[in-house]
Amino acid sequence: MSTILNGLRIVEVSAFVAAPLGGMTLAQLGAEVIRIDPIGGNIDYRRWPLAPSGASLYWASLNKGKRSVAIALDRPEGQELARALIARPGPDAGILLTNLPTSGWMSHDALAQSRDDLITLRLTGNHDGSGAVDYTVNCASGFPLATGPGPAPVNHVLPAWDVAAGLYLATGLLAAERARRQDGKGRQVSLALSDVMLASVGNLGYIADVQVNGAVRQPIGNDLYGALGRDFATADGRRVMIVAISNRQWRAIGRATGLTDKFALIGPMMDVDLDTEGGRFTARAAIFAVLERWCAERSLAEIAAALDGTGVLWGPYRDFGQLVHEDPRCSVANPMFATIEQPGAGPVRAPGSPLAFSGGTRLPPLPAPQLGQDTEAVLAEGLGLSTAAIGKLFATGIVAGPSSTAF
Amino acid sequence: MSTILNGLRIVEVSAFVAAPLGGMTLAQLGAEVIRIDPIGGNIDYRRWPLAPSGASLYWASLNKGKRSVAIALDRPEGQELARALIARPGPDAGILLTNLPTSGWMSHDALAQSRDDLITLRLTGNHDGSGAVDYTVNCASGFPLATGPGPAPVNHVLPAWDVAAGLYLATGLLAAERARRQDGKGRQVSLALSDVMLASVGNLGYIADVQVNGAVRQPIGNDLYGALGRDFATADGRRVMIVAISNRQWRAIGRATGLTDKFALIGPMMDVDLDTEGGRFTARAAIFAVLERWCAERSLAEIAAALDGTGVLWGPYRDFGQLVHEDPRCSVANPMFATIEQPGAGPVRAPGSPLAFSGGTRLPPLPAPQLGQDTEAVLAEGLGLSTAAIGKLFATGIVAGPSSTAF
Repeated sequence: MSTILNGLRIVEVSAFVAAPLGGMTLAQLGAEVIRIDPIGGNIDYRRWPLAPSGASLYWASLNKGKRSVAIALDRPEGQELARALIARPGPDAGILLTNLPTSGWMSHDALAQSRDDLITLRLTGNHDGSGAVDYTVNCASGFPLATGPGPAPVNHVLPAWDVAAGLYLATGLLAAERARRQDGKGRQVSLALSDVMLASVGNLGYIADVQVNGAVRQPIGNDLYGALGRDFATADGRRVMIVAISNRQWRAIGRATGLTDKFALIGPMMDVDLDTEGGRFTARAAIFAVLERWCAERSLAEIAAALDGTGVLWGPYRDFGQLVHEDPRCSVANPMFATIEQPGAGPVRAPGSPLAFSGGTRLPPLPAPQLGQDTEAVLAEGLGLSTAAIGKLFATGIVAGPSSTAF
Repeated sequence: MSTILNGLRIVEVSAFVAAPLGGMTLAQLGAEVIRIDPIGGNIDYRRWPLAPSGASLYWASLNKGKRSVAIALDRPEGQELARALIARPGPDAGILLTNLPTSGWMSHDALAQSRDDLITLRLTGNHDGSGAVDYTVNCASGFPLATGPGPAPVNHVLPAWDVAAGLYLATGLLAAERARRQDGKGRQVSLALSDVMLASVGNLGYIADVQVNGAVRQPIGNDLYGALGRDFATADGRRVMIVAISNRQWRAIGRATGLTDKFALIGPMMDVDLDTEGGRFTARAAIFAVLERWCAERSLAEIAAALDGTGVLWGPYRDFGQLVHEDPRCSVANPMFATIEQPGAGPVRAPGSPLAFSGGTRLPPLPAPQLGQDTEAVLAEGLGLSTAAIGKLFATGIVAGPSSTAF
């Protein structure tokens, strides 16, 4: 099957969310991504949630479509094998993606002795190399103290900085590979998780708001800042989000709910122009009071019937179960999804890449490998080792296949 | 200056967060990104927060380092100019990034008549082309109902899906450009904001947890799921996040706080093995009770003195003001940051790309353009128009420069 990154070869030595997501993002576009783990698995191999078999659903979800090689990375012979895989020849190979604290044999300079145009992507916690994780980066970001209804900090549950870091790694890898095609040079690409947070805070204007206006964004619950939007309770115990950013969207709310005449009273009442984003934000309490009653008198189905197809930006709140069971976008009716047979977990509905490219078949989601599933094949095809040499590596415990690492 | 994406030429017709962030991500790696806006600015040009001058700090922060061309996109002559810029010849050009609902002249097929290897990146709300924004995607994601201390939904304030979508766009653009270099073919690349959310929910294991275990993640406040971590109040009214994922990190907490002996009582007390992630998660209330008292008896400075450099994963909570004023990572001591002179806002501390590439100078952050700042230069250099022709376009209102679009 022709895929967009067909031929690209990446070796990943990773754990947790960001680096595995970076590798998987490229695997889902057709790159060959070989994840090398220590025999028995890396530190993330048993992370919750687990299936009844003991298999980690977390690990399986973040490593879909990769190949898995299990090597004794604490032994010189194992390091030599890993080095050979990382520095494999070919214009599409010679790329390492890692978030492990590395020195010695896995440093860029040491590996570059085997291939001087090597590309190494290295994720660290902070730019000085010190450790940090999503949780300890997030607490400093300003967002937890601006999230929720009150002064207590509210952490996001989505590991947003990890997700963003994984996607920066994918971008950085393709940028470095593009540059290598032009100038033949290898590079070490560094990314700090806290820099991802800091860049995002700056890119969204929060730093400038502090510096220029002395303004420190305070929590306003689920209200949108600077525009109109909030959550509302329905008559049947559900909640909906209703949003208007443009004037067109704002007028659509009035038309679809029949509340245009009531809204027209709010401008003079609050001395604002409701045809501006700022005016609607300033008068939002009055607007919300009217919308709140409208929603409270209707079921979710009635609200959907009134708002769908009218140009109103809205959506129901769903928990993870409702998302899986009732959202048609989260089903195989969406071409991004397919049901895969995941070893140790059974059939699960899995997403492929959200990126769709015209003129080629979309790569369907693939299961994550069993740990060590591809050890033998990669040593044979990738390094050209003989059956006898591979047998010796297994016998001496330098490498392992899937049988010795069952769930 | 040699930069990693030197030579790459992208035209962006965009608004809000995701598509502008996608373009800026590549501009910060050295690509030329020309943002085309209607005269007077697109719908996001006045988004809050504003500087006292009326300039949008939001817009400025998301469009750093781009060139700005203002064109009357509602007139055929303007559309023709935009088309010519989008379809400019050269192996590095012919790339459009947009999130505007487009048909007619700005559709991929229409533009590809001017350049058949055109690459078009198109962000939509949903995969069927219907509209959605971060807020109406997020409510369905499951995360608001799993965030915060109780059953009420808590929206993230970080527009996390927009940020992720912007980075997917950057990845998809580089992937399509790589493929074009190999096969000479243009492509339309589609990305739906809700697919970014759905893929992330799936990649993090939440869909599999529902399907395999029937488990729907419930809110547990600021507690980490499946590991150890929470926020704690200090003696001086601050809060800190303390986390342990690995056994090494867990033991570091005991050592640094002197609480190892007390922690040792908790295993037998709660019938769990505290040397496992799951055991610590199960017994977290008891562990938190001990840590809570330790933190409450100490100031933030005392806690920092006790924990820094010990291998403990921890960090203080900061609001946006504290982040800007007290976090050394958010200062020009961090090579990612520099102070730029932003028109309409004055000097602001701005981030460059969080990606750092060895062997080349890191592109410093650049200000966002004034609207229409580069109209004349781009028409001359990019399209080779004569001074007379350009003068006529200005005179007839087909294009505009910065003077007619002041703050």
